[in-house]
Order: sequence, then C-alpha cells, then structure tokens
Amino acid sequence: MIEREVKRPPEFVYPIDEWKMIETGFYRDLVPQAETMFAIGNGYLGMRGNFEEGRPVHQSGTFVNGFHETWQIEYGERAYGFAKTGQTMLNVPDGKILKLYVDDEPLYLPTANLLEYRRTLDMQAGVLDRRVLWETPSGKEVLVESRRLVSFQHRDVAAIEYRVTVLNATAPVVISSQLVRTGRNAASDFDPRKSRGFAETPLIQQRGECADQRILLGYKTRNSGMTLACGADHTIETECPYLVATECSEDMGKVVFTVNAQEGEPITIHKYLAYHTSRGVPVDELVDRSERSLDRTLRDGFDQLVAGQRAYLDDFWARSGVEVESDPEVMGRPSGELQQAIRWNLLQILQAVGRAEGVGVPAKGLTGQAYEGHYFWDTEIYVLPFLTYTTPRIAENLLRFRHSMLDKARERAAELHQKGALFPWRTINGEEASAYYAAGTAQYHLNADIMYALKKYVDVTGDTDLLDTAGVEMLVETARMWADLGFFSERLDGRFSIHAVTGPDEYTTVVDDNLYTNSMARLNLRYAVSSVNWLRENLPDRYRALVHRTGLQDDEVTEWERVADAMYLPYDEAKGIHLQDADFLEHPVWDFENTPIEHYPLLLNYPPAGTSPARRRPV
Amino acid sequence: MIEREVKRPPEFVYPIDEWKMIETGFYRDLVPQAETMFAIGNGYLGMRGNFEEGRPVHQSGTFVNGFHETWQIEYGERAYGFAKTGQTMLNVPDGKILKLYVDDEPLYLPTANLLEYRRTLDMQAGVLDRRVLWETPSGKEVLVESRRLVSFQHRDVAAIEYRVTVLNATAPVVISSQLVRTGRNAASDFDPRKSRGFAETPLIQQRGECADQRILLGYKTRNSGMTLACGADHTIETECPYLVATECSEDMGKVVFTVNAQEGEPITIHKYLAYHTSRGVPVDELVDRSERSLDRTLRDGFDQLVAGQRAYLDDFWARSGVEVESDPEVMGRPSGELQQAIRWNLLQILQAVGRAEGVGVPAKGLTGQAYEGHYFWDTEIYVLPFLTYTTPRIAENLLRFRHSMLDKARERAAELHQKGALFPWRTINGEEASAYYAAGTAQYHLNADIMYALKKYVDVTGDTDLLDTAGVEMLVETARMWADLGFFSERLDGRFSIHAVTGPDEYTTVVDDNLYTNSMARLNLRYAVSSVNWLRENLPDRYRALVHRTGLQDDEVTEWERVADAMYLPYDEAKGIHLQDADFLEHPVWDFENTPIEHYPLLLNYPPAGTSPARRRPV
Repeated sequence: MIEREVKRPPEFVYPIDEWKMIETGFYRDLVPQAETMFAIGNGYLGMRGNFEEGRPVHQSGTFVNGFHETWQIEYGERAYGFAKTGQTMLNVPDGKILKLYVDDEPLYLPTANLLEYRRTLDMQAGVLDRRVLWETPSGKEVLVESRRLVSFQHRDVAAIEYRVTVLNATAPVVISSQLVRTGRNAASDFDPRKSRGFAETPLIQQRGECADQRILLGYKTRNSGMTLACGADHTIETECPYLVATECSEDMGKVVFTVNAQEGEPITIHKYLAYHTSRGVPVDELVDRSERSLDRTLRDGFDQLVAGQRAYLDDFWARSGVEVESDPEVMGRPSGELQQAIRWNLLQILQAVGRAEGVGVPAKGLTGQAYEGHYFWDTEIYVLPFLTYTTPRIAENLLRFRHSMLDKARERAAELHQKGALFPWRTINGEEASAYYAAGTAQYHLNADIMYALKKYVDVTGDTDLLDTAGVEMLVETARMWADLGFFSERLDGRFSIHAVTGPDEYTTVVDDNLYTNSMARLNLRYAVSSVNWLRENLPDRYRALVHRTGLQDDEVTEWERVADAMYLPYDEAKGIHLQDADFLEHPVWDFENTPIEHYPLLLNYPPAGTSPARRRPV
Repeated sequence: MIEREVKRPPEFVYPIDEWKMIETGFYRDLVPQAETMFAIGNGYLGMRGNFEEGRPVHQSGTFVNGFHETWQIEYGERAYGFAKTGQTMLNVPDGKILKLYVDDEPLYLPTANLLEYRRTLDMQAGVLDRRVLWETPSGKEVLVESRRLVSFQHRDVAAIEYRVTVLNATAPVVISSQLVRTGRNAASDFDPRKSRGFAETPLIQQRGECADQRILLGYKTRNSGMTLACGADHTIETECPYLVATECSEDMGKVVFTVNAQEGEPITIHKYLAYHTSRGVPVDELVDRSERSLDRTLRDGFDQLVAGQRAYLDDFWARSGVEVESDPEVMGRPSGELQQAIRWNLLQILQAVGRAEGVGVPAKGLTGQAYEGHYFWDTEIYVLPFLTYTTPRIAENLLRFRHSMLDKARERAAELHQKGALFPWRTINGEEASAYYAAGTAQYHLNADIMYALKKYVDVTGDTDLLDTAGVEMLVETARMWADLGFFSERLDGRFSIHAVTGPDEYTTVVDDNLYTNSMARLNLRYAVSSVNWLRENLPDRYRALVHRTGLQDDEVTEWERVADAMYLPYDEAKGIHLQDADFLEHPVWDFENTPIEHYPLLLNYPPAGTSPARRRPV
C-alpha cells in the first residue's frame, strides 16, 4: 500500500478544543470541508455550514429527512429486476440567508478585510456561532455576530440570531433576510456517490406570501407528490432607527431591514424558521402548521430555544458521552484531539437521528446530498448498536420504520421470484433505488443486517415486545428469503451455499459464498428459529397472529434450522484463514505499487470491480 | 428441459418449395413474421417484407447498413469504463409504398375480398413477387401484380414493378407512389434486444423536391452528422388514359397516377429507388449521386435489373449452394423442407453481406432494427467461415473493416487501462456501444474471435497479403491485451488465468477462466507469435513497418508464447470434462421443471444471470 496524504483540516485553523469545533480564520479552499464540519441538524431538519451571506458556497444545503423526489431510472440497456424508480432527497428552501450591506458594500468574506474571524460549533450547547470583525473599504469596523441552531426540542424549527454593530462610525446598514428556493441539486453526471440533478425544478410552488415580517412558502413535488411548507418570521431589537420592507417574488420571500446604524449600537435580528413536510397532507394544511410553529416560537423567544437545546444535549452527553481519560500527544497528534473527534462524531450521530421519527438515517445524515439521502445498511450496522446502548427509544423507532416497509420488501422479493421479503439496498420510500444491480440489489446481506440489529436491540434492552410483534414477522420473511436464495451443494458435501451475491466489499461484486453474507444469513435464520419457537411456546396468541400474517408452516422452521446448520463458511486450511468469498484467494492482488496517484479513487478510474476490476491488476 | 412449442410458419400457408418461399394466403397474425421472411436486401440496402399498401404493418423497415444516429447513454448509476455513446441504425425513408384505390376504395388486405393471394420470394431470381386478385365491394375484379428487388449489381438501387388490371369492368384507378420518412424507430423500453426510440426525429431534412415523376429527399442526422439522400423515379405504361401529379410536402414526396382503367387493360408502373449515405459527404452531393443512379437505372430499365439480379444469384448459388441429396419426410417434417430452409438461410447471409462494403454485418442483417443494427461477434464466428470458403473477397473486406476500427479499439483498451487493443462488443462506428457492462464489454473474447476468423481466412485462402499487413498489426495489439488481462496464478501452479470476463453464455456473466475465452485467447496469442516470427524471418521490410506502427519489442513475443503455453483450461478430473468456467460445476442447476412457461424468455423474467440469475434456482 502506498503512503497517501490524508487531508486533515489544518491545525492552525482548527485548534483542539474538547467541547468545541473552532475555525479561527477564513480560507477559501476550506469552504467545502467546513460546510460539512459545521453542519447542524436534528435528524429531521438539517443545515449545511453555509455562511449567512449566501456566498461563497460549495453546496448550499437545507434538508428534511425523507423529503424526496422520484424519477424514472434510465438504463442504456435494462434488465429484469433492475430498480425502476430513483429517489433523491431534495434541497428545501434556504432560510439561512441574511445578506449584509454597509454603505451599500456587501460583506463578502473572500475579499473582506477581516480583523477577526471565528466560527464555533459548541457541542455542549448545540449551537453554531460566528464572530466576524470586518473593516469596510471606508475604514468602518463592523462586528457581525451570529448564532444558529436547529432545535432538538421542536424538530420543525430552526433559528438564527444575527447581530451587527458598527463600532467606530455611523453607517447605513441593510440586512436582507431571505427564504429562497435554491436552484438545482448539487449533482454529478459521473460520480455515483453524488446526487442527481434535475432539468426542471422538482418543487412546484403552491403558496407564496408575505405579511409583516413573515414569509410563507408551499410546494408540491413534481413526481413523488410530497408536500412541503416553510416559513420564516423575524424580530428586530435596536436603538437605531430602521425601516422594514417585506416582499415575495416567485420562489422566494425576503424581509429587508434598513437601519441607520449608530456607533457602537447593536442591531439584533432573530430569524425563526419552520419546515413541515408530508407524503399526503395538503400544502395549505402544512402552511397552517408552519404558522403555528412560528407563532409558538416567537412567543417563546430565542433564549428559550437555546436553553432547551442545552437541556437536550446535557441529557444526551450524560447518557451517551465518552470521556477519554488519557488523551496525550501520540504519533504527532495533539493532546485532546481524540476527545474532540469522538465528541464530534457522537454529535454527528445525534444530528442524524435525534428526531428522525418515522424515517431512516441517510448515509450522510442531513449534512449533504451525497448518496441521495438514501438509507443503507449503515443504519443497522453502524448506528443502531450505539443507539441501542444509549437511546433505545430511537433504535426501536428505526426498527419499526424498517417494519413499516416490510410489504414493499415482500413485493421486491416476489418481483425477483424469491420467497419472503428482500429489503432494498438503498431507499427512502421502501422501494429499491439502486440503479446498479451488482453493487446494489445483489447486496442481499441487508436482510440479515436488520435482523442483526434487531437481535442486538432485544438482547441489550430485554424489550421483547418489539420482537414478539414486528420483529418476528420480519424474521420469518427474511429467513424465507435466505432459505430460498441458496442451495445444498453436492460439491460441498451438502453444505448450504449462496451464490451470486455482493458482500460489503463493493469492489468485488457478485461472488459465491461471501463469508459475511453467509455468516449473517446463518445468524438471521437461527434467530428466526429461536424466536418463532419461543413465541409458539410462550405466547400462543401472538404466534397465531404471526401465522395469520405470514402463513408460516411448521416445516419451514425445521428447514431454516437445517439450512443454518449446513451454512458454508469458506475457509482455507493451508493458510488457516476464513476467505472473503469462495474464490477470494484465486484472484491476483491489486498492484498498488504501480497504481498512479492520479488514478485514485479507483472507483472513478477503473471499470467496476467484480463486474471486473479490482480482481485485475492495473497497468 | 421442458417441451416447448416451436412457432413454425403453418404449412398450409407456406408450402414447401425448394427454390421459393411462398405465402399462399393473407393472415393478419402472420404479418410480423412474414415481414422478416420476405425481407430483401443486398448487404447495403435492406427492405422488410412490408406491403406496398403501407398497411397493415408490424414494423416498417428500410435500412442502409451503417447509417446510424448516436445518443448519450444514460445510466441510473454510471461507472468508469461504461460505454458513453449509443448507436442506432435508423429507418430511412420508405420507398416501398404504392397505395391503390379503385373507385376510391383503398386496397386493404385485412378487409378486402381476396379471390387470389400469393407472395413468392424467388431465391433463384432474387425477386419478391406478389399476385393479388381483389374483388372490390362493387364486384370489380382487380388483379394486382408486383415485383420488388434490391439490386445486387447496383447496391444503391431498388426497384418495384407494379401492375394493376381491372379484369371485368372499367374503373377509376389511383396509384399513389410515395417516398416517405416513416415516423419513429420501432422501439422497446424494456427488451434489451430491441431498438431505441427517439423522442425527436433524428433525421433533419435538408432537401425535398419533386419534378416530373421524380422525388428527391436529403437529410442529415441530428447527432452523428451522417448524411443521406434518396430518390424515386417512375415510368408508366398503359393503354388507358391517365394523369400524373407530383407533390412534395415535409418529409415526403408522392407521384400520383390517376387512370381511367379499361377492362382487361394493364397499368404498369416501374418505380426506381436510390439511396446514398455518407459519414461526411454533403447532402447536396449525395442528392446528385442519387440523380445519377436514377438516370442510369431509368435508361437500363427494369428487365435489365432483373436479368442482372439473376446473373448475380446464379453465380452465388453455383459458388455457395448446398444441394441436399436426400431430403425425405423425417420426424413429421415434409420432404424438401430442409433444402428450402438451407437455401433461405444462405440467401439471408448473402442479403446481409453481399454488398456490405466498408461496413460490418448487423446482427439481424438488414431485416429489422433489433440489436440496433450493431456488429457483434456473429460476423467473425458464424458468417465469416462461410464466406471464407465461398466468397473470400467479402470475408477479406470484413476483416479489413475491423482493421479500420483498430485505432478505436486501441483507445478503448487505453481507457480501460489495458495494453493493446480491445474491440467493442457491439458497435457500428468502432466505439463500444454496449450499455450493459457484464454482457457487453466483459465479453473480451471478441478480440480472439476476430483473430480466429483471420486465421481461418488465411489458412483456407492462402492469401497472406492481408495477414502480413493489417492482420499482423491486429494480432500484435490483441495479443498484448490478452497477456495484460490475465496473470500467472500461484494457486494454479503458475498457470495463466483470466478473471472476470464473460464468455458466450450471457446468462453467466463475469466469470473466471471461461473455457471458450481462454482457449480462444491461446489461439490468438499463438497465431500472433507465429505470424510475427514468420514476418521477421521472411519479410523484413514489412516487419520493420510493423515495429514502426506498433512499437513491438522482441520480449513481448516471448512473453506471449509463455502465456499461451501456460494458459489454464479448467477441467474436472472426476467427470472427465472441460468446464465452462472455473466455478461452473459449483452452481446449482436451473430448475427448468418448475419454471413456468410464462417466465420465458428467462432474460425478461429473471434478474440478469451471472449478475445473479441463471446461477440460482428459480422458485
């Protein structure tokens, strides 16, 4: 393996702090990365770390988990069983924007003379602060302080405090606060990890109105039929004289504060935002809800939002925090960095799932559009164990969410002529959205990943109610799929073999007897057997309900036991190791020595592995 | 394997005749099949067996080999190395149409009272005849006799003789002869074997004019930039009084003959058609060529075309005919059927390749749009051996055509980070057009298929001139690809192994050590070694030219020898058989017993094999 530079955020910009992520200067080239580092969210609503000024921007992002558009997947050459409908999480109207003009000069960080600059994500408080001291071309010193939060207490609500003080002069100050439908989704034609662009906007405006300092917008998506309403309201506090003008044009609303700023006199604006979405509720009803959210938030005020945020996070850290007892300088990395990194990562999980009720966990949380906002196996394998130990209520919600998609999984299995249910490799709405069979649908292991998370949840919490109802129903359908997918191989002395699946190594697709898949299938089958047996013996009413729902036959359970016991786990006697798949050691080793640095990432520079590549030596 | 009904054309409609394909009645449901059975062509220009009346029609087809539109292939999820540009053979303007009206009643076969109906493809004469005796609703008996040919002598030319005689009355007769751009390509959204539809017409009109009885149309394609001109001219012979009106509207021209038909007095129209296409020549120049083709054909007349056709075919049958000495009734099939079937098949080959100069052989010849008019391995493996033995000049042309695409094959290999050249799995213009990697590009065997055909051509004809120039250059580049694609496997005691390719079994894609591929690669390598060595020793000038063109190094040839000698051919000692691929016997056998009849063809009802399917038992 050749040494490759890891692109760390440079330390002189991002000093170590155990409870904070701090950015001490503005650097144009760090904008993309910082947008993710300073993203905030609550699992329902997410905002990338974009600047209030709207520019410079790498990718403007405001997302509501599960709010998506659908589109027909096009294939140059289609084949049976390929997913038909793509799903893409959409950018919702951007409420982060507050544009500032002093003497009609806009604040634009790349060219501004910044006497001070500091951005801070306070992980204890759950707020994102920024302090900028700007010297305008005419020598006026303007202090801009802002604080942003996406509320954990009120999941539909976000808020911004924005304070401008001209320190050494008077000046005409204009603050234009906007709620604006951004243009296109950030998209890539080529990189499959990125998101889809749309030729026409997928958001069709239904409502758009302004009154006083309030903006309300309503939309319906073009294809998926989802509805969205969002609103913004404002207060201003200042001793300086000011005017307010509010206007709506197509797809945007703005409230413009024109202030005669006095020397040293702060101008404080509070901006409250509300976002409501639905799969079926009419837009008008969502607009009403947004109005109610804004009314309530205005009554409570900004400080109460901040206090509620802190209380929620205190509870989270008490429950889930990890204290690093010894975090000295190691391998050239500074003391305290590990603690900071762990906290930041835990906060990311919380920001991705805290209020993700009735939805899943997008691959990138709500920090960006990569992977289209889809739910993958990450939820069950990486996120759920943590939640099971720290916040089992959310873990349970996520498992119930999968259960709500069981009928779609049954339909998908039937389409592929498989028994039982097959959960989709990537989805928002329960349908398979992977447009690349080999690294998508072929990852059958997803079925077992969910059952693994279920088992862990039940084992750890002792809560069998979920298992006895939704859980066991999923176990029956997933076990059926496994027993049907493989076969007892004569060549392997009757062991149970599963061919043509893709394991977690997506560079080696469509293999036979993938170790991970077979092991997990065995766990899935055995857990189905024990759970069904336990239910039959201990809760006969629930067992009868299960049989009613699934048509379960006694001999199926016996068969699953037989399949699990015979499961083939490839093993190389000579080397004494388990193999990733039956043929893993047959392939040549990738020639990293001779892979030029500009050919990374391999995925964008070599044909899809398994569907050929990683198996082959590069030039 | 379950018994399945073969859909043979019914014998009471298609009686056996050793030299003719005969249709003795009109049956609406046989129209699609008959359009293919009665298709005529010369390898450059092809016409489906559509009726002169234009309706009923399953798929209207007039094709010029290689005349295609390009389009960007869309992928739901793209990956490196996927083909970018699709290529689709287009329908060119339809000149087959001669609409007949008697007493203003159109001849429409499905509802007409047909006293006689007979369609005959005369395989000795190379003409398609039809004789229809139509009783109009008012009791007039109208004899319609037509003869159609696509000239082998003049490849740009087709002609129709159309004769109408009202046998028992006088009647106003109108014959509207058209040259018309048909609408869309026959297309399928789902079936990958079919062709692509276009939302907008890919043919942009440049010229369109009529004079006397002549029509001229000119087009340029929207994306590929190819040009096309076509024209029609007419003569009429009759004792009956008549008028002629000629008109052009957008995308069509027509010449309308209005005749006061006298009892028993024939009206004979000769329609001459010319088609010229190019990749670069301006439309105006092609229109001029079409005019010259029409002028010449008019001068010569229809009978001379018929005579020339017969002479060409006499020569073909003398050279290539197969006489079945004993063809008795066997297995319930009638005597003579085998002879008829063999002749028809040989004629199909001729119609697909006879004048295919500078182009390849589309998978369906020029009988339809399935497979987009692409050139596959069929050319080299199925068609070229026949031609090598019977018409080596055409075989040589086809091999030279592949050589003309060698630079594109070099580019394709470089794109995939492979040495040498990789010929595309399906193409018209030399670029890979397969939108499905696993069953397309992964069929690397195409390289060896071409070299196999080259070897056969040289062995049979003794013509080494092709080999010493174009041939050896292709051998060097294809051998390079093979040596680079595989590796010496430690696990196989140093044998040379080729992984992740697809062999001819497209239901089992992306396998390791496919027997066909490895055997053919070995042949390719050995033929490269012997040819290069022979050239070096016997034709040093040509050898130096080869080194100049390819940068060939001596040690490369040694390496190819080593690779060929070590080539791994999977073999099962216990069963004593060669295996289709290294893992072939590991997989379960497809459960044909339990595959419902409505699940055929499997390809449209199961996920793509290898990329999963055939490897797995169906439900």
